[in-house]
Amino acid sequence: MPLISLTQKDLLGIEDLTPEEIKLILDTAEMLKEISRREIKKVPTLRGKTIVTFFFESSTRTRTSFDIAAKRLSADTFSLTGSSSSLTKGETLLDTARNLEAMNPDLIIIRHPASGAPHFVAERIKPGVINAGDGMHEHPTQALLDMLTVRDRFGRLDGLKLAIVGDLFHSRVARSNIMGFSKMGAKVMVAGPPSLVPPFIQHLGAEVAPTMEEAISGADVIMMLRVQNERLQGAFFPSVREYAVFYGLDRKKLALAKENALVMHPGPINRGVEISPDVADGPQSVIMDQVTNGVAVRMAVLLLLIGGRAGEKAN
Amino acid sequence: MPLISLTQKDLLGIEDLTPEEIKLILDTAEMLKEISRREIKKVPTLRGKTIVTFFFESSTRTRTSFDIAAKRLSADTFSLTGSSSSLTKGETLLDTARNLEAMNPDLIIIRHPASGAPHFVAERIKPGVINAGDGMHEHPTQALLDMLTVRDRFGRLDGLKLAIVGDLFHSRVARSNIMGFSKMGAKVMVAGPPSLVPPFIQHLGAEVAPTMEEAISGADVIMMLRVQNERLQGAFFPSVREYAVFYGLDRKKLALAKENALVMHPGPINRGVEISPDVADGPQSVIMDQVTNGVAVRMAVLLLLIGGRAGEKAN
Amino acid sequence: MPLISLTQKDLLGIEDLTPEEIKLILDTAEMLKEISRREIKKVPTLRGKTIVTFFFESSTRTRTSFDIAAKRLSADTFSLTGSSSSLTKGETLLDTARNLEAMNPDLIIIRHPASGAPHFVAERIKPGVINAGDGMHEHPTQALLDMLTVRDRFGRLDGLKLAIVGDLFHSRVARSNIMGFSKMGAKVMVAGPPSLVPPFIQHLGAEVAPTMEEAISGADVIMMLRVQNERLQGAFFPSVREYAVFYGLDRKKLALAKENALVMHPGPINRGVEISPDVADGPQSVIMDQVTNGVAVRMAVLLLLIGGRAGEKAN
Repeated sequence: MPLISLTQKDLLGIEDLTPEEIKLILDTAEMLKEISRREIKKVPTLRGKTIVTFFFESSTRTRTSFDIAAKRLSADTFSLTGSSSSLTKGETLLDTARNLEAMNPDLIIIRHPASGAPHFVAERIKPGVINAGDGMHEHPTQALLDMLTVRDRFGRLDGLKLAIVGDLFHSRVARSNIMGFSKMGAKVMVAGPPSLVPPFIQHLGAEVAPTMEEAISGADVIMMLRVQNERLQGAFFPSVREYAVFYGLDRKKLALAKENALVMHPGPINRGVEISPDVADGPQSVIMDQVTNGVAVRMAVLLLLIGGRAGEKAN
Repeated sequence: MPLISLTQKDLLGIEDLTPEEIKLILDTAEMLKEISRREIKKVPTLRGKTIVTFFFESSTRTRTSFDIAAKRLSADTFSLTGSSSSLTKGETLLDTARNLEAMNPDLIIIRHPASGAPHFVAERIKPGVINAGDGMHEHPTQALLDMLTVRDRFGRLDGLKLAIVGDLFHSRVARSNIMGFSKMGAKVMVAGPPSLVPPFIQHLGAEVAPTMEEAISGADVIMMLRVQNERLQGAFFPSVREYAVFYGLDRKKLALAKENALVMHPGPINRGVEISPDVADGPQSVIMDQVTNGVAVRMAVLLLLIGGRAGEKAN
Repeated sequence: MPLISLTQKDLLGIEDLTPEEIKLILDTAEMLKEISRREIKKVPTLRGKTIVTFFFESSTRTRTSFDIAAKRLSADTFSLTGSSSSLTKGETLLDTARNLEAMNPDLIIIRHPASGAPHFVAERIKPGVINAGDGMHEHPTQALLDMLTVRDRFGRLDGLKLAIVGDLFHSRVARSNIMGFSKMGAKVMVAGPPSLVPPFIQHLGAEVAPTMEEAISGADVIMMLRVQNERLQGAFFPSVREYAVFYGLDRKKLALAKENALVMHPGPINRGVEISPDVADGPQSVIMDQVTNGVAVRMAVLLLLIGGRAGEKAN
């Protein structure tokens, strides 16, 4: 019997989701995609719901995606940004969250530089909490939109080979995707500069390849990770140029993957560093589909968490 | 005969309100509270109204409360923030306000570090103006939400004893509350470090107690004021530790008040400074109720100022 | 046969508009003005449309005007601001725009310090683009609101004499207005400090007067340009005081124009620099009408670009 709603109040990580729940979210997103292609891109499903985005790290991209998703479902959205000064004490975060709670929101979407911050809040307040990225931990809606993008093209996730390449150490995107794709039956290989491969990453479900070439050989999907500018020089690897040679995706390396392998990137991309422009803009790139699917997946998550009998209300 | 609407176009201070008008606002807020507990937290009362929040001091808390209140009544909201550079000339403030006026808003909600700024603007433009805090002068919606919170618990304000403790000098919250509670028949006692008790505060309706202990003895309500971090050290009192000893509320001091006395704080709280964590989170604390009532009171004020025949439209 | 809609997807500059298209926009704005004077200032015309304002220069005034215009037509709006760091590469601007495109917006409103940036983006993405000011190039909606304001008073633009005075070199407002008024049959004379009169400005349709007095003599309309504070001292002219003497509009200079000549300014004004307070606030000033008309013109442009069979939907 298929699931028809999420039972939990929060979406904190891929770690907590069953394969059935992931499938439910992807199926719901698939159904909702059509709304964003209409002349009137809006349904009344979440009218009168209050959704707060509460971002302690700047991100217009993810915040806007959530905001568009919410408004296409007719919810009211409110945006709060936290200055870094208020991060030092978990106490302060909680007090702020409790203050928000007292204004009767239905859902609080949190991005925070500290791993576990959304979980800490979610346990202590009644409204639902969505983790929009916590430190180096998880970014579940990113992994969901990535899975949707791949499933759209291949019709399945099961049995595919996904390669994730780059700064694995700092990447919550990598962590959520390793868990998500593994749960759905894909094989995940990762590669990156040795200083940026976290120990025990194989326990999440990934196999560590010694080189990028080995990771992407025969892959159905190559997911490149963003190199943070502030980490480009110094401690982790010698130079941008060297990084691009060993861990950048260009046409030559891409030829090692399957013929119609997909190229993905969570954005924003550093052209010429982790990905060459011709590959980023080439026929195998689905980077813009990822963004489009981001809105659909976030609509699905909002709907399933606070939409009541969601399936019936969406039309 | 009961009042059924406010006759003025602005809400600038508690000073200008009659007891009947205060009662009208509280009664309306009481009626509107239920909207925020519905599944669909929205009524069409203020559809097509344009409300601008124009904040020259940062305050996500108060601004979000107004924004939520406005959207639950279906108004459109627009947020402007003023950089401190544009504060130096009243002329500039007025020019900006006139520019806003030319875009036909129904209401402008102003927070400004200069006492009297909202009044200055209100006299010169046609749309209504709400004072969301002006310098060390007034913060009327805060006092209204505080009165609503107390009236909810005791069923009345008349005859109660309220103690306000802390930095009275810099507190517009204290000023508005002293006037509000006095007008409604409560007795207000205040206490604070001598350097932070403004002269002539008794003319607003408060009695100055020599010690915190004396102020709160037998009180029905204790309202603690926030200590501004930038004032904690130096000119006004010797140290945080000393402040907490003499003017912080802990369980021992709380025992001096009536048995079921309410503990209030306008937020954000400094745990361990003006209030101990166990009291802030304890059974007598109504701090979160204050926040919830903030939305209701602001809905009431918006409705009464620009809602036309408000009482009829609210359902 | 009158035009009934714009055929292009973008509004990038007055340069691209025919006189018929300008007339269509002004006529539509005229019709829409009435909405902003209603009790319920909102029509459902653009319900379900997604409009993004994407401003790389700070401007609460113009952004708020677009935002109010959009919401009075029931569109959903999303605001992005670009930090100056992301301006250095056109590539990055395009990547960001493509990301927005992938979220299926109907219209992107761009302000950017680089001339031509909105055109660069518009050619490469499907959604419509409105130029809300690009470098020293164009600011078409400002010129349209200025033309609407003048036409309101005189019933026509044809045959009028317009004087534009001030920093012509840096002014996109001047450039768009010279082209717009010229196209509509007005005669445009300009004057400014020699260092701030760009060469070849006459090719846009303006005649350069040797002095401010000569430019405004017999004018029907005087449009004063804002002096940028950062340009007040130094390279371009000796002092604020000298600027005001030679290129500021006071009552004495105003007497040189026609008796009921209009005084305009795009705002924000520097009182006592390019315009004296008594003239700015005097009976001939239409500065506030310009702001009011800004909302109407922007409503018209939004409607004509993305409103479908707009004329039929507006009521």
